[in-house]
Amino acid sequence: MSESPSQVISPSKAAARIRAAAVDAFATNGYGGTTTREIAARLDMSPAAMYPHYRSKEELLFAISYEGHTAALDVVTGADLPDEPPSTRLKALIGAFASWQATHHAQARVVQYELNALTPEHYRDVVKLRRDITRIVRAVVDAGAATGEFTVPDGEGVTLALMSLCVDICRWFPAGAYTEPHVVADLYADLAMRMVGAN
Amino acid sequence: MSESPSQVISPSKAAARIRAAAVDAFATNGYGGTTTREIAARLDMSPAAMYPHYRSKEELLFAISYEGHTAALDVVTGADLPDEPPSTRLKALIGAFASWQATHHAQARVVQYELNALTPEHYRDVVKLRRDITRIVRAVVDAGAATGEFTVPDGEGVTLALMSLCVDICRWFPAGAYTEPHVVADLYADLAMRMVGAN
Repeated sequence: MSESPSQVISPSKAAARIRAAAVDAFATNGYGGTTTREIAARLDMSPAAMYPHYRSKEELLFAISYEGHTAALDVVTGADLPDEPPSTRLKALIGAFASWQATHHAQARVVQYELNALTPEHYRDVVKLRRDITRIVRAVVDAGAATGEFTVPDGEGVTLALMSLCVDICRWFPAGAYTEPHVVADLYADLAMRMVGAN
Repeated sequence: MSESPSQVISPSKAAARIRAAAVDAFATNGYGGTTTREIAARLDMSPAAMYPHYRSKEELLFAISYEGHTAALDVVTGADLPDEPPSTRLKALIGAFASWQATHHAQARVVQYELNALTPEHYRDVVKLRRDITRIVRAVVDAGAATGEFTVPDGEGVTLALMSLCVDICRWFPAGAYTEPHVVADLYADLAMRMVGAN
């Protein structure tokens, strides 16, 4: 029986410090290239002292992935404006999601790139959160198509592309003139309008 | 003095087999989580027999990255139609690039995700190829803006987003209804038209 998400995302300061050190280590050397011993060493901690918080490298990756996806879902949920027209809602959603990916690009990169290292059970827990984020965006795309505000030949394809565009920010950000999260957010909110054919 | 690109992308069958085994190993366990010994073991080869072809894991990653980027650049260059209007050109470029990323998604993932593990010199060689691909897309975006065929407030931003959208295919492909490279290519060529505000 593995730990539940609420158990691994412990609010204790020590656990949060371990997660932060692990993000740094994974971002630098990759998940496969990092040992729990190295993560402990970054904190001047013995591996045994880390064990009560995280019993394995995979459990630590799960905590980071679950925490990152929960934060992104919270941002997207909080940005939605259900009483507004679909254009206003989609702009707000994409802007908020893009901004989050840019601001937290190191964490987001670990969260996105190392998913396949999770156990099947942990992978399922994280994929559920990803689907929740996609579902919110999809609902707004479909709402705009239903009112005729958007011209969308394929709601699944456009939603997939919108999510992909935002998620990939963590790979390239910052670049060229795009070094501020709010500048990326504005660009992407505008591009989202174009991608759904908003009138 | 490190090897030149043409030396590491040897056309010999043995070298090509080593690169293919390395792509599999890196795609499964990450670059940091793979040893040259493990790559050799996949080929029933001793590490010593691999050495005349690739003297280090980094040299092997460079060969894979350089080969992958050269192939993508060739595809994009070959798809351009300089005598056609910008809309026709951009559709062809994005369709070809998206199709390549989908078809070669395992190789593309290694090529895109492990760039930071290259030596500074090798990184520069690969970034040059990336810039060449971006430059071709940018030239078509700018050509369309100049003729008024496209409405693009910011050529850099739109080009960045177009490239990002295509590169990210290797992370998610296949998904949902998008399991065939040509279906992704059609979707993305259409979305590219929307993103540049083609009339």
